[in-house]
Amino acid sequence: MTDIKPISPPRSMPGSRIKTGIVMMNLGGPATLDDVEPFLLELFADREIIQLPLQRWLGPFIARRRTPKVRSLYAGIGGGSPILRYTEAQGRGMVARLDRISPETAPHKSYVAFRYTYPRSDDALRAMQADGVERAVAFTQYPQFSCSTTGSSLNELWRAAARTGLSHSFEWSIIDRWPVHQGFIAAMTETVRDGMEQFEPADRDKVLILFSAHSLPLDVIDRGDAYPQEVGASAQRVVEQLGRSNPYILAYQSDVGPVRWLGPSTEQVLRRLGARGHKHVLVVPIAFTTDHIETLSELDQEYGEVAHQAGITHYKRAPALNERPLFLDGLAQIVRDHLASGLAHSSQYPTRCAGCTNPQCRNILNPVSPGAGAPRLPA
Amino acid sequence: MTDIKPISPPRSMPGSRIKTGIVMMNLGGPATLDDVEPFLLELFADREIIQLPLQRWLGPFIARRRTPKVRSLYAGIGGGSPILRYTEAQGRGMVARLDRISPETAPHKSYVAFRYTYPRSDDALRAMQADGVERAVAFTQYPQFSCSTTGSSLNELWRAAARTGLSHSFEWSIIDRWPVHQGFIAAMTETVRDGMEQFEPADRDKVLILFSAHSLPLDVIDRGDAYPQEVGASAQRVVEQLGRSNPYILAYQSDVGPVRWLGPSTEQVLRRLGARGHKHVLVVPIAFTTDHIETLSELDQEYGEVAHQAGITHYKRAPALNERPLFLDGLAQIVRDHLASGLAHSSQYPTRCAGCTNPQCRNILNPVSPGAGAPRLPA
Repeated sequence: MTDIKPISPPRSMPGSRIKTGIVMMNLGGPATLDDVEPFLLELFADREIIQLPLQRWLGPFIARRRTPKVRSLYAGIGGGSPILRYTEAQGRGMVARLDRISPETAPHKSYVAFRYTYPRSDDALRAMQADGVERAVAFTQYPQFSCSTTGSSLNELWRAAARTGLSHSFEWSIIDRWPVHQGFIAAMTETVRDGMEQFEPADRDKVLILFSAHSLPLDVIDRGDAYPQEVGASAQRVVEQLGRSNPYILAYQSDVGPVRWLGPSTEQVLRRLGARGHKHVLVVPIAFTTDHIETLSELDQEYGEVAHQAGITHYKRAPALNERPLFLDGLAQIVRDHLASGLAHSSQYPTRCAGCTNPQCRNILNPVSPGAGAPRLPA
Repeated sequence: MTDIKPISPPRSMPGSRIKTGIVMMNLGGPATLDDVEPFLLELFADREIIQLPLQRWLGPFIARRRTPKVRSLYAGIGGGSPILRYTEAQGRGMVARLDRISPETAPHKSYVAFRYTYPRSDDALRAMQADGVERAVAFTQYPQFSCSTTGSSLNELWRAAARTGLSHSFEWSIIDRWPVHQGFIAAMTETVRDGMEQFEPADRDKVLILFSAHSLPLDVIDRGDAYPQEVGASAQRVVEQLGRSNPYILAYQSDVGPVRWLGPSTEQVLRRLGARGHKHVLVVPIAFTTDHIETLSELDQEYGEVAHQAGITHYKRAPALNERPLFLDGLAQIVRDHLASGLAHSSQYPTRCAGCTNPQCRNILNPVSPGAGAPRLPA
């Protein structure tokens, strides 16, 4: 009987063992208005994104004080964030494509791990265990790396593995950034073209493209965070793909509080463009993959009002990537290329920021092929 | 006799009329120690790069106070800046190649226009007139655009044309930026490979690549200067060309004075990398095309000492592009592609920074094909 080889179950068989589990990591957002306060409490407790004096007291204080305003913002976009719905749809679309283009790693399944709301890393890990996953990919949904986004999510994932007793259950690799992956750039370029379609054909030559990314406090930049370099590279690549492009600007949104943030500020740029007589602006969210409060509320409503006041008569936003088929193709290509590389992470991942102040970062649990892509430099 | 057509003189004929004049614009540098003070006086008088209260008095005061220190820095690199010698050699190498790869625009000739020392824009324009140039290209030697570098040089060029009575003498186009042109990226990538060769083969995996670009005050960034976005794109493209690259960081050097500049600071990054135990660093000047005080003195000597003190035992610098044949090829390709496009400038050029405070900028004199690439947006 030794010549009889075990037969793999067919991929489509119900209950078949998942070969590759893919954890879609993102910020997350409150699904209902009652989730706003717990979401903010988690956010202001994360010292990897916000460092406050007496954080254990001041964090909850600020979170509770901001809750009514943030609740009203979520009420203004339909009563909650659509990020879970989109992330789940992206995962399904990606997995369906991956099963086709990477049969050797199939069947695949996606799991959502949000940083500040459910489903959390703990939920994703338990579900993966229940499905019998052995090979796991931590896939950041932030195209450009920052310690305050992808870094924080990864550190939380490893902590959750320890909390759930699953530190040794999976063989891990990380997709820690994809700022210029062609699968991302092609889809982002398509959103810009779609955005341009919202203008009258005769007006399209007059449109200024305003790429907008979430800002970071300058202290994070000065420590050496890779984010602005990678955002700059993404914007350049999209413009190249557009061919002879309209003029463009890269600006940064959502700065808050008393410290100085990376500029130029999207809001201030809009005011100044209006003052200078620009009438046609297309804003393009270059560092987000789904609609959420920063697009639906801040860009569309708040900055839409700023633009209107400033005399920008034609202010439009490029659609978010959301469930765009070309983006689902892109997500699948990013994972396929990563799996085919055999690497545990990018060559950038192990190197901490020069000014790193975080005792826990740039780790990986049970890396696949420990030799490949493992840290070679002092931590 | 009407059927006899005029015969163009052969290209190689001595004294033949120059068909295309190419103005190589750069900062410049003092050629001798006695040129240091006049150079600094010009620099501190340029409100497009430095804005001081009571500039007409405070500028000369600061320039004269800094002269002894800066003289000693130039003394330490051989008594003067090599930037003129390199720029002239780059021009010659570029023109020889252009005559071959773009015969329809030949003969070409290059002219140097430095911003703060001789030869100045006035000198370049008079030489072009003497040579009978009609078609002129203003070619910035800063790969990435900033209003404080390329912008200031262009504005000075148009002022010089007015001063010399040559405002109507040439038909102009501008090469205002080339941050990801393949001709530039290929040559820059070669310098990184050459830089890596300075390390022992066994050590090369341990090398951290530190791209360093000249910094800018944050006020310039907040106005919407394109520079950091384009520098980020250049660094990304070089890393892509390297293939599976060593880890890298982008940092900014040469900040001075009391205002806050764009970070992370190259000097501080070196201190912190050393403190973290990094022993092998290759610094790559990503925004300069020739050796000058910022490479030979600041990177090699000053930061070399910083690195040594910090415990970075193997601190090397990638060579500047200088007369590297692949870079001369690149310069020629950039000009050929520009001439073949028929455009007067990039689509980015006409759009002022959102927070522009300069009444004179983003102009062009007598643009070639006024329709193509001319400003379409409010100035």
